[in-house]
Amino acid sequence: MPTRRFKVTIAYKGAAYHGFQRQINAVGIQNILEDKLSVLTDKRVEIEGCSRTDKGVSANMFVFSFSADCRITCDGIVRGMNSALPMDIAVLDCEEAEDDFHARYSCKGKEYRYFILNTPCRNPFLYETSFHYPKEINLDLMNRAAEYFVGTHDFTSFCGTSNLKENPVRTVWECHGERTGDMICFTVSGDGFLYNMVRIMVGTLLWVNEGRFSPEDMPRILEEKDRRSAGKTAPACGLFLNKVMY
Amino acid sequence: MPTRRFKVTIAYKGAAYHGFQRQINAVGIQNILEDKLSVLTDKRVEIEGCSRTDKGVSANMFVFSFSADCRITCDGIVRGMNSALPMDIAVLDCEEAEDDFHARYSCKGKEYRYFILNTPCRNPFLYETSFHYPKEINLDLMNRAAEYFVGTHDFTSFCGTSNLKENPVRTVWECHGERTGDMICFTVSGDGFLYNMVRIMVGTLLWVNEGRFSPEDMPRILEEKDRRSAGKTAPACGLFLNKVMY
Repeated sequence: MPTRRFKVTIAYKGAAYHGFQRQINAVGIQNILEDKLSVLTDKRVEIEGCSRTDKGVSANMFVFSFSADCRITCDGIVRGMNSALPMDIAVLDCEEAEDDFHARYSCKGKEYRYFILNTPCRNPFLYETSFHYPKEINLDLMNRAAEYFVGTHDFTSFCGTSNLKENPVRTVWECHGERTGDMICFTVSGDGFLYNMVRIMVGTLLWVNEGRFSPEDMPRILEEKDRRSAGKTAPACGLFLNKVMY
Repeated sequence: MPTRRFKVTIAYKGAAYHGFQRQINAVGIQNILEDKLSVLTDKRVEIEGCSRTDKGVSANMFVFSFSADCRITCDGIVRGMNSALPMDIAVLDCEEAEDDFHARYSCKGKEYRYFILNTPCRNPFLYETSFHYPKEINLDLMNRAAEYFVGTHDFTSFCGTSNLKENPVRTVWECHGERTGDMICFTVSGDGFLYNMVRIMVGTLLWVNEGRFSPEDMPRILEEKDRRSAGKTAPACGLFLNKVMY
Protein backbone atom coordinates (compact mmCIF):
# COMPACT_ATOMS: atom_id res chain seq x y z
CA MET A 1 0.00 0.00 0.00
CA PRO A 2 1.51 3.38 -0.97
CA THR A 3 1.77 6.01 1.74
CA ARG A 4 -0.88 8.70 1.30
CA ARG A 5 -0.64 12.30 2.47
CA PHE A 6 -3.68 14.00 4.03
CA LYS A 7 -4.72 17.59 4.71
CA VAL A 8 -7.45 17.85 7.36
CA THR A 9 -9.38 20.98 8.37
CA ILE A 10 -10.94 21.12 11.82
CA ALA A 11 -12.62 23.60 14.19
CA TYR A 12 -12.45 23.42 17.96
CA LYS A 13 -13.37 25.19 21.17
CA GLY A 14 -10.15 25.34 23.15
CA ALA A 15 -11.57 25.93 26.65
CA ALA A 16 -11.11 22.33 27.84
CA TYR A 17 -7.65 21.72 26.35
CA HIS A 18 -4.04 22.58 27.08
CA GLY A 19 -3.53 23.99 23.61
CA PHE A 20 -3.18 22.17 20.33
CA GLN A 21 0.21 20.57 20.87
CA ARG A 22 0.68 17.05 22.18
CA GLN A 23 1.22 17.00 25.96
CA ILE A 24 2.60 14.41 28.32
CA ASN A 25 0.69 15.22 31.51
CA ALA A 26 -2.24 17.15 30.07
CA VAL A 27 -4.62 16.81 27.13
CA GLY A 28 -3.62 18.68 23.99
CA ILE A 29 -5.97 18.52 21.02
CA GLN A 30 -3.19 16.76 19.10
CA ASN A 31 -3.29 13.84 21.58
CA ILE A 32 -6.97 13.26 20.91
CA LEU A 33 -6.67 13.60 17.12
CA GLU A 34 -3.72 11.18 16.92
CA ASP A 35 -5.47 8.62 19.12
CA LYS A 36 -8.65 8.66 17.05
CA LEU A 37 -6.81 8.69 13.71
CA SER A 38 -4.67 5.75 14.79
CA VAL A 39 -7.78 3.71 15.56
CA LEU A 40 -9.41 4.75 12.28
CA THR A 41 -6.41 4.01 10.04
CA ASP A 42 -5.13 1.07 12.11
CA LYS A 43 -1.66 2.70 12.05
CA ARG A 44 0.20 4.79 14.61
CA VAL A 45 -0.38 8.26 13.15
CA GLU A 46 1.57 11.42 13.96
CA ILE A 47 0.18 14.71 12.73
CA GLU A 48 1.65 18.14 12.02
CA GLY A 49 -0.47 21.12 13.08
CA CYS A 50 -0.43 24.45 11.23
CA SER A 51 0.28 26.27 14.48
CA ARG A 52 0.63 25.84 18.21
CA THR A 53 -2.41 27.44 19.76
CA ASP A 54 -2.26 28.23 23.49
CA LYS A 55 -4.35 26.72 26.25
CA GLY A 56 -7.89 28.10 25.91
CA VAL A 57 -7.52 29.44 22.35
CA SER A 58 -10.16 28.27 19.82
CA ALA A 59 -10.09 27.77 16.06
CA ASN A 60 -12.76 28.31 13.44
CA MET A 61 -10.29 26.79 10.99
CA PHE A 62 -7.18 24.80 11.82
CA VAL A 63 -5.26 22.56 9.40
CA PHE A 64 -3.12 19.53 10.12
CA SER A 65 -1.33 17.07 7.85
CA PHE A 66 -0.31 13.44 8.22
CA SER A 67 0.91 10.45 6.27
CA ALA A 68 -0.53 6.95 6.46
CA ASP A 69 -0.65 3.85 4.31
CA CYS A 70 -4.34 3.11 4.75
CA ARG A 71 -7.36 2.39 2.56
CA ILE A 72 -9.98 4.58 4.23
CA THR A 73 -11.56 7.28 2.03
CA CYS A 74 -11.35 10.98 2.90
CA ASP A 75 -15.09 10.99 3.53
CA GLY A 76 -14.59 8.00 5.82
CA ILE A 77 -12.06 9.97 7.82
CA VAL A 78 -14.46 12.93 8.20
CA ARG A 79 -17.36 10.71 9.30
CA GLY A 80 -15.28 8.41 11.46
CA MET A 81 -13.51 11.25 13.23
CA ASN A 82 -16.70 13.22 13.82
CA SER A 83 -18.39 10.26 15.44
CA ALA A 84 -15.32 9.53 17.61
CA LEU A 85 -14.26 13.05 18.63
CA PRO A 86 -15.58 15.01 21.61
CA MET A 87 -18.29 17.55 20.77
CA ASP A 88 -15.91 20.52 21.05
CA ILE A 89 -13.76 19.31 18.12
CA ALA A 90 -15.24 18.92 14.62
CA VAL A 91 -13.63 17.76 11.36
CA LEU A 92 -14.78 20.08 8.55
CA ASP A 93 -12.86 18.59 5.64
CA CYS A 94 -10.27 15.99 4.63
CA GLU A 95 -8.48 15.77 1.30
CA GLU A 96 -5.43 14.04 -0.14
CA ALA A 97 -2.49 16.41 -0.60
CA GLU A 98 0.80 16.51 -2.48
CA ASP A 99 3.66 14.54 -0.90
CA ASP A 100 5.45 17.73 0.12
CA PHE A 101 2.43 19.38 1.74
CA HIS A 102 3.07 20.26 5.38
CA ALA A 103 0.41 22.03 7.46
CA ARG A 104 3.00 24.26 9.12
CA TYR A 105 5.74 24.80 6.54
CA SER A 106 3.41 25.16 3.54
CA CYS A 107 1.36 27.83 5.32
CA LYS A 108 1.44 31.24 3.57
CA GLY A 109 -0.47 33.22 6.15
CA LYS A 110 -3.02 33.21 8.95
CA GLU A 111 -5.94 35.24 10.13
CA TYR A 112 -6.82 35.55 13.82
CA ARG A 113 -9.90 37.04 15.44
CA TYR A 114 -10.04 38.40 18.95
CA PHE A 115 -13.51 38.78 20.51
CA ILE A 116 -14.14 41.33 23.25
CA LEU A 117 -17.55 41.24 24.94
CA ASN A 118 -18.18 44.83 25.97
CA THR A 119 -21.06 44.61 28.48
CA PRO A 120 -21.37 45.63 32.16
CA CYS A 121 -22.33 42.09 33.21
CA ARG A 122 -20.52 38.92 32.21
CA ASN A 123 -22.33 36.47 29.91
CA PRO A 124 -22.76 32.81 30.94
CA PHE A 125 -22.84 31.68 27.30
CA LEU A 126 -19.80 33.51 25.95
CA TYR A 127 -17.16 33.27 28.67
CA GLU A 128 -15.27 30.49 26.89
CA THR A 129 -15.18 32.25 23.53
CA SER A 130 -14.69 35.95 24.29
CA PHE A 131 -12.94 38.26 26.76
CA HIS A 132 -15.37 40.13 28.98
CA TYR A 133 -14.27 43.76 29.20
CA PRO A 134 -16.83 45.95 31.00
CA LYS A 135 -15.16 49.37 30.54
CA GLU A 136 -16.22 51.75 27.80
CA ILE A 137 -14.39 51.19 24.49
CA ASN A 138 -13.26 53.93 22.13
CA LEU A 139 -12.89 51.79 19.03
CA ASP A 140 -11.71 54.65 16.79
CA LEU A 141 -8.81 55.30 19.15
CA MET A 142 -7.89 51.59 19.28
CA ASN A 143 -8.07 51.36 15.48
CA ARG A 144 -5.78 54.37 15.10
CA ALA A 145 -3.19 52.52 17.19
CA ALA A 146 -3.84 49.22 15.36
CA GLU A 147 -2.92 50.85 12.04
CA TYR A 148 0.71 51.09 13.23
CA PHE A 149 0.98 47.29 13.39
CA VAL A 150 0.19 46.89 9.69
CA GLY A 151 3.30 46.38 7.58
CA THR A 152 6.64 44.62 8.02
CA HIS A 153 8.10 45.12 11.50
CA ASP A 154 10.33 43.51 14.10
CA PHE A 155 7.68 42.29 16.57
CA THR A 156 10.05 41.39 19.44
CA SER A 157 8.08 43.68 21.79
CA PHE A 158 5.00 41.61 20.99
CA CYS A 159 6.52 38.21 21.63
CA GLY A 160 5.81 36.25 24.82
CA THR A 161 9.08 34.32 24.96
CA SER A 162 12.29 35.97 26.06
CA ASN A 163 14.63 33.46 24.41
CA LEU A 164 13.53 34.26 20.88
CA LYS A 165 15.44 32.02 18.47
CA GLU A 166 13.60 32.78 15.25
CA ASN A 167 13.66 35.90 13.10
CA PRO A 168 11.19 38.29 14.80
CA VAL A 169 10.24 40.15 11.60
CA ARG A 170 6.68 39.57 10.44
CA THR A 171 4.35 41.25 7.95
CA VAL A 172 0.90 42.13 9.27
CA TRP A 173 -1.64 42.59 6.45
CA GLU A 174 -4.63 43.73 8.49
CA CYS A 175 -5.28 44.80 12.07
CA HIS A 176 -8.70 46.30 12.61
CA GLY A 177 -11.58 46.14 15.07
CA GLU A 178 -15.30 46.19 14.33
CA ARG A 179 -18.28 46.38 16.64
CA THR A 180 -21.44 44.28 16.24
CA GLY A 181 -23.78 45.10 19.11
CA ASP A 182 -21.94 44.34 22.36
CA MET A 183 -19.20 42.33 20.65
CA ILE A 184 -16.00 43.87 19.34
CA CYS A 185 -13.96 41.72 17.00
CA PHE A 186 -10.36 42.49 16.03
CA THR A 187 -9.17 40.81 12.85
CA VAL A 188 -5.40 40.37 12.53
CA SER A 189 -3.87 38.70 9.49
CA GLY A 190 -0.30 38.27 8.32
CA ASP A 191 2.39 35.98 7.00
CA GLY A 192 3.26 34.62 10.43
CA PHE A 193 2.98 35.28 14.13
CA LEU A 194 5.31 35.09 17.11
CA TYR A 195 4.35 33.42 20.38
CA ASN A 196 1.41 35.34 21.99
CA MET A 197 1.77 38.09 19.37
CA VAL A 198 -1.94 38.72 18.73
CA ARG A 199 -2.80 38.58 22.43
CA ILE A 200 -0.08 41.12 23.27
CA MET A 201 -1.22 43.35 20.39
CA VAL A 202 -4.81 43.29 21.69
CA GLY A 203 -3.68 43.82 25.29
CA THR A 204 -1.64 46.83 24.16
CA LEU A 205 -4.63 48.23 22.23
CA LEU A 206 -6.72 47.91 25.41
CA TRP A 207 -4.08 49.96 27.23
CA VAL A 208 -4.51 52.56 24.49
CA ASN A 209 -8.23 52.51 25.25
CA GLU A 210 -7.47 53.09 28.93
CA GLY A 211 -5.21 56.06 28.16
CA ARG A 212 -2.02 54.27 29.28
CA PHE A 213 -0.61 54.60 25.75
CA SER A 214 -1.51 56.96 22.93
CA PRO A 215 -1.81 55.53 19.40
CA GLU A 216 1.37 57.38 18.53
CA ASP A 217 3.32 55.31 21.12
CA MET A 218 3.07 52.21 18.91
CA PRO A 219 6.10 52.95 16.66
CA ARG A 220 8.25 53.53 19.75
CA ILE A 221 7.07 50.25 21.35
CA LEU A 222 7.96 48.38 18.14
CA GLU A 223 11.37 50.08 17.97
CA GLU A 224 12.28 49.28 21.58
CA LYS A 225 12.17 45.53 20.79
CA ASP A 226 11.40 44.80 24.43
CA ARG A 227 8.38 42.84 25.69
CA ARG A 228 8.22 45.13 28.74
CA SER A 229 7.46 48.14 26.51
CA ALA A 230 4.12 46.71 25.32
CA GLY A 231 0.87 46.16 27.26
CA LYS A 232 -0.54 43.10 29.00
CA THR A 233 -1.20 39.81 27.20
CA ALA A 234 -4.97 39.66 26.59
CA PRO A 235 -6.65 36.43 27.87
CA ALA A 236 -6.58 33.33 25.68
CA CYS A 237 -10.38 32.82 25.72
CA GLY A 238 -10.97 35.74 23.29
CA LEU A 239 -8.63 34.41 20.58
CA PHE A 240 -9.62 32.37 17.52
CA LEU A 241 -7.47 31.12 14.69
CA ASN A 242 -9.91 32.02 11.93
CA LYS A 243 -8.23 31.19 8.62
CA VAL A 244 -5.07 29.42 7.39
CA MET A 245 -3.84 30.27 3.90
CA TYR A 246 -1.84 27.93 1.59
CA MET B 1 -33.78 43.21 61.71
CA PRO B 2 -36.99 42.87 59.66
CA THR B 3 -37.15 40.04 57.14
CA ARG B 4 -36.72 41.32 53.59
CA ARG B 5 -38.05 39.69 50.43
CA PHE B 6 -35.89 39.56 47.30
CA LYS B 7 -36.53 38.97 43.60
CA VAL B 8 -33.39 37.95 41.71
CA THR B 9 -32.99 37.56 37.95
CA ILE B 10 -30.25 35.29 36.62
CA ALA B 11 -29.08 33.70 33.35
CA TYR B 12 -27.30 30.38 33.10
CA LYS B 13 -25.93 27.80 30.71
CA GLY B 14 -27.41 24.52 31.87
CA ALA B 15 -24.96 22.08 30.23
CA ALA B 16 -23.00 21.33 33.41
CA TYR B 17 -25.96 21.05 35.80
CA HIS B 18 -28.66 18.56 36.70
CA GLY B 19 -31.40 21.13 36.18
CA PHE B 20 -32.36 24.05 38.35
CA GLN B 21 -33.81 22.19 41.29
CA ARG B 22 -31.84 21.31 44.40
CA GLN B 23 -30.40 17.78 44.21
CA ILE B 24 -29.03 15.41 46.83
CA ASN B 25 -26.47 13.44 44.78
CA ALA B 26 -25.94 15.84 41.89
CA VAL B 27 -25.47 19.57 41.41
CA GLY B 28 -28.61 21.56 40.70
CA ILE B 29 -28.22 25.29 40.07
CA GLN B 30 -30.32 25.88 43.19
CA ASN B 31 -27.66 24.17 45.36
CA ILE B 32 -25.02 26.60 44.17
CA LEU B 33 -27.22 29.69 44.50
CA GLU B 34 -28.32 28.77 48.04
CA ASP B 35 -24.75 28.05 49.14
CA LYS B 36 -23.41 31.35 47.82
CA LEU B 37 -26.40 33.39 49.13
CA SER B 38 -26.03 31.83 52.57
CA VAL B 39 -22.41 32.92 52.74
CA LEU B 40 -23.28 36.40 51.47
CA THR B 41 -26.22 37.02 53.85
CA ASP B 42 -24.74 35.03 56.73
CA LYS B 43 -28.10 33.19 57.01
CA ARG B 44 -29.21 29.80 55.77
CA VAL B 45 -31.19 30.85 52.67
CA GLU B 46 -33.75 28.78 50.78
CA ILE B 47 -34.87 30.07 47.42
CA GLU B 48 -37.96 29.51 45.25
CA GLY B 49 -37.33 29.20 41.50
CA CYS B 50 -39.84 30.32 38.86
CA SER B 51 -39.66 26.92 37.22
CA ARG B 52 -37.92 23.59 37.27
CA THR B 53 -35.73 23.46 34.23
CA ASP B 54 -34.43 20.04 33.13
CA LYS B 55 -30.84 18.85 33.07
CA GLY B 56 -29.07 20.65 30.22
CA VAL B 57 -31.70 23.39 29.70
CA SER B 58 -30.41 27.00 29.77
CA ALA B 59 -32.02 30.31 30.71
CA ASN B 60 -31.59 33.79 29.30
CA MET B 61 -33.86 34.92 32.14
CA PHE B 62 -34.77 32.99 35.25
CA VAL B 63 -36.26 34.49 38.42
CA PHE B 64 -36.04 33.25 41.99
CA SER B 65 -37.25 34.70 45.29
CA PHE B 66 -36.08 34.38 48.86
CA SER B 67 -36.47 35.90 52.31
CA ALA B 68 -33.64 36.90 54.61
CA ASP B 69 -33.08 39.26 57.52
CA CYS B 70 -29.83 40.75 56.33
CA ARG B 71 -28.33 44.19 55.76
CA ILE B 72 -26.67 43.68 52.39
CA THR B 73 -27.83 45.99 49.57
CA CYS B 74 -29.37 44.62 46.36
CA ASP B 75 -26.34 45.85 44.47
CA GLY B 76 -24.14 44.05 46.99
CA ILE B 77 -26.01 40.82 46.25
CA VAL B 78 -25.49 41.25 42.48
CA ARG B 79 -21.77 41.97 42.85
CA GLY B 80 -21.13 39.43 45.60
CA MET B 81 -22.94 36.66 43.75
CA ASN B 82 -21.26 37.41 40.43
CA SER B 83 -17.82 37.20 41.97
CA ALA B 84 -18.66 33.95 43.80
CA LEU B 85 -20.66 32.08 41.13
CA PRO B 86 -19.19 29.86 38.41
CA MET B 87 -18.84 31.53 35.01
CA ASP B 88 -21.89 29.74 33.55
CA ILE B 89 -24.29 31.43 36.01
CA ALA B 90 -24.69 35.23 36.10
CA VAL B 91 -26.88 37.45 38.30
CA LEU B 92 -28.51 40.10 36.09
CA ASP B 93 -30.61 41.91 38.68
CA CYS B 94 -31.74 41.91 42.31
CA GLU B 95 -34.56 43.98 43.81
CA GLU B 96 -36.64 43.99 46.96
CA ALA B 97 -40.15 42.67 46.37
CA GLU B 98 -43.53 42.69 48.13
CA ASP B 99 -43.92 40.23 51.02
CA ASP B 100 -46.27 38.06 48.98
CA PHE B 101 -44.08 37.87 45.87
CA HIS B 102 -43.21 34.28 44.96
CA ALA B 103 -41.11 33.53 41.86
CA ARG B 104 -43.27 30.53 40.98
CA TYR B 105 -46.79 31.38 42.16
CA SER B 106 -46.71 35.06 41.11
CA CYS B 107 -45.62 34.13 37.58
CA LYS B 108 -48.15 35.13 34.89
CA GLY B 109 -46.47 33.55 31.91
CA LYS B 110 -43.26 32.34 30.33
CA GLU B 111 -41.51 32.44 27.00
CA TYR B 112 -39.25 29.63 25.85
CA ARG B 113 -36.92 29.48 22.86
CA TYR B 114 -35.77 26.32 21.16
CA PHE B 115 -32.66 26.59 18.95
CA ILE B 116 -32.12 24.16 16.07
CA LEU B 117 -28.75 24.34 14.29
CA ASN B 118 -29.52 23.26 10.74
CA THR B 119 -26.09 22.50 9.21
CA PRO B 120 -24.58 19.33 7.71
CA CYS B 121 -21.67 19.36 10.19
CA ARG B 122 -21.92 19.79 13.93
CA ASN B 123 -20.56 22.96 15.49
CA PRO B 124 -17.97 22.79 18.33
CA PHE B 125 -19.13 26.14 19.74
CA LEU B 126 -22.90 25.60 19.79
CA TYR B 127 -23.42 22.01 20.90
CA GLU B 128 -24.33 23.01 24.45
CA THR B 129 -26.85 25.64 23.42
CA SER B 130 -28.62 24.24 20.34
CA PHE B 131 -29.83 20.97 18.88
CA HIS B 132 -27.86 19.95 15.80
CA TYR B 133 -30.31 18.73 13.15
CA PRO B 134 -28.62 18.09 9.77
CA LYS B 135 -31.72 17.22 7.68
CA GLU B 136 -33.40 19.81 5.48
CA ILE B 137 -36.06 21.86 7.28
CA ASN B 138 -39.35 22.98 5.75
CA LEU B 139 -40.08 25.78 8.18
CA ASP B 140 -43.39 26.77 6.56
CA LEU B 141 -44.68 23.24 7.09
CA MET B 142 -43.54 23.21 10.73
CA ASN B 143 -45.12 26.62 11.33
CA ARG B 144 -48.44 25.44 9.87
CA ALA B 145 -48.43 22.63 12.46
CA ALA B 146 -47.25 24.98 15.24
CA GLU B 147 -50.29 27.21 14.70
CA TYR B 148 -52.51 24.41 16.08
CA PHE B 149 -50.79 24.64 19.48
CA VAL B 150 -51.81 28.29 19.93
CA GLY B 151 -54.87 28.71 22.15
CA THR B 152 -56.26 26.95 25.22
CA HIS B 153 -55.89 23.16 25.03
CA ASP B 154 -55.51 20.07 27.16
CA PHE B 155 -51.78 19.36 26.62
CA THR B 156 -51.72 15.85 28.17
CA SER B 157 -50.24 14.44 24.93
CA PHE B 158 -47.36 16.90 25.35
CA CYS B 159 -46.55 16.08 28.95
CA GLY B 160 -43.56 13.93 29.88
CA THR B 161 -44.95 12.53 33.14
CA SER B 162 -47.57 9.79 33.10
CA ASN B 163 -48.90 10.45 36.60
CA LEU B 164 -50.17 13.93 35.84
CA LYS B 165 -51.62 15.40 39.03
CA GLU B 166 -52.20 18.97 37.90
CA ASN B 167 -54.78 20.39 35.49
CA PRO B 168 -53.29 19.77 32.02
CA VAL B 169 -55.05 22.73 30.36
CA ARG B 170 -52.70 25.53 29.30
CA THR B 171 -52.99 28.56 27.05
CA VAL B 172 -50.26 28.96 24.45
CA TRP B 173 -49.95 32.56 23.19
CA GLU B 174 -47.35 32.07 20.50
CA CYS B 175 -45.66 29.13 18.82
CA HIS B 176 -43.61 30.10 15.79
CA GLY B 177 -40.24 29.36 14.21
CA GLU B 178 -37.88 31.78 12.46
CA ARG B 179 -34.69 31.17 10.57
CA THR B 180 -31.55 33.34 10.92
CA GLY B 181 -28.83 31.86 8.72
CA ASP B 182 -28.27 28.27 9.83
CA MET B 183 -30.13 28.70 13.11
CA ILE B 184 -33.84 28.09 13.49
CA CYS B 185 -35.44 29.45 16.64
CA PHE B 186 -38.92 28.45 17.84
CA THR B 187 -40.51 30.87 20.29
CA VAL B 188 -43.22 29.39 22.52
CA SER B 189 -44.99 31.53 25.09
CA GLY B 190 -47.97 30.86 27.33
CA ASP B 191 -49.50 31.07 30.80
CA GLY B 192 -47.84 27.87 31.95
CA PHE B 193 -46.14 24.70 30.75
CA LEU B 194 -46.35 21.01 31.66
CA TYR B 195 -43.26 18.87 32.21
CA ASN B 196 -41.25 18.61 28.94
CA MET B 197 -44.09 20.34 27.06
CA VAL B 198 -41.98 22.59 24.82
CA ARG B 199 -39.50 19.81 24.02
CA ILE B 200 -42.31 17.43 23.03
CA MET B 201 -43.94 20.17 20.92
CA VAL B 202 -40.64 20.77 19.07
CA GLY B 203 -40.01 17.03 18.70
CA THR B 204 -43.48 16.64 17.22
CA LEU B 205 -42.89 19.54 14.81
CA LEU B 206 -39.67 17.83 13.67
CA TRP B 207 -41.71 14.71 12.92
CA VAL B 208 -43.98 16.93 10.82
CA ASN B 209 -40.84 18.07 8.98
CA GLU B 210 -39.91 14.43 8.37
CA GLY B 211 -43.38 13.61 7.01
CA ARG B 212 -44.30 11.36 9.92
CA PHE B 213 -47.19 13.70 10.78
CA SER B 214 -49.04 16.26 8.67
CA PRO B 215 -49.81 19.66 10.22
CA GLU B 216 -53.47 18.63 10.27
CA ASP B 217 -52.65 15.74 12.65
CA MET B 218 -52.03 18.20 15.50
CA PRO B 219 -55.70 18.59 16.61
CA ARG B 220 -56.07 14.80 16.74
CA ILE B 221 -52.86 14.43 18.80
CA LEU B 222 -54.15 17.03 21.28
CA GLU B 223 -57.56 15.30 21.47
CA GLU B 224 -56.11 11.85 22.13
CA LYS B 225 -54.61 13.10 25.44
CA ASP B 226 -51.94 10.41 25.24
CA ARG B 227 -48.18 11.04 25.31
CA ARG B 228 -47.69 8.16 22.85
CA SER B 229 -49.64 10.04 20.16
CA ALA B 230 -47.09 12.88 19.95
CA GLY B 231 -43.50 12.84 18.61
CA LYS B 232 -40.19 12.40 20.34
CA THR B 233 -38.98 14.74 23.10
CA ALA B 234 -36.42 17.11 21.52
CA PRO B 235 -33.04 17.24 23.33
CA ALA B 236 -32.65 19.53 26.35
CA CYS B 237 -29.61 21.38 24.94
CA GLY B 238 -31.76 23.36 22.45
CA LEU B 239 -34.12 24.78 25.08
CA PHE B 240 -33.88 28.19 26.76
CA LEU B 241 -36.21 29.78 29.26
CA ASN B 242 -36.19 33.23 27.66
CA LYS B 243 -38.61 35.40 29.64
CA VAL B 244 -40.66 35.20 32.84
CA MET B 245 -43.65 37.52 33.14
CA TYR B 246 -45.11 38.88 36.42
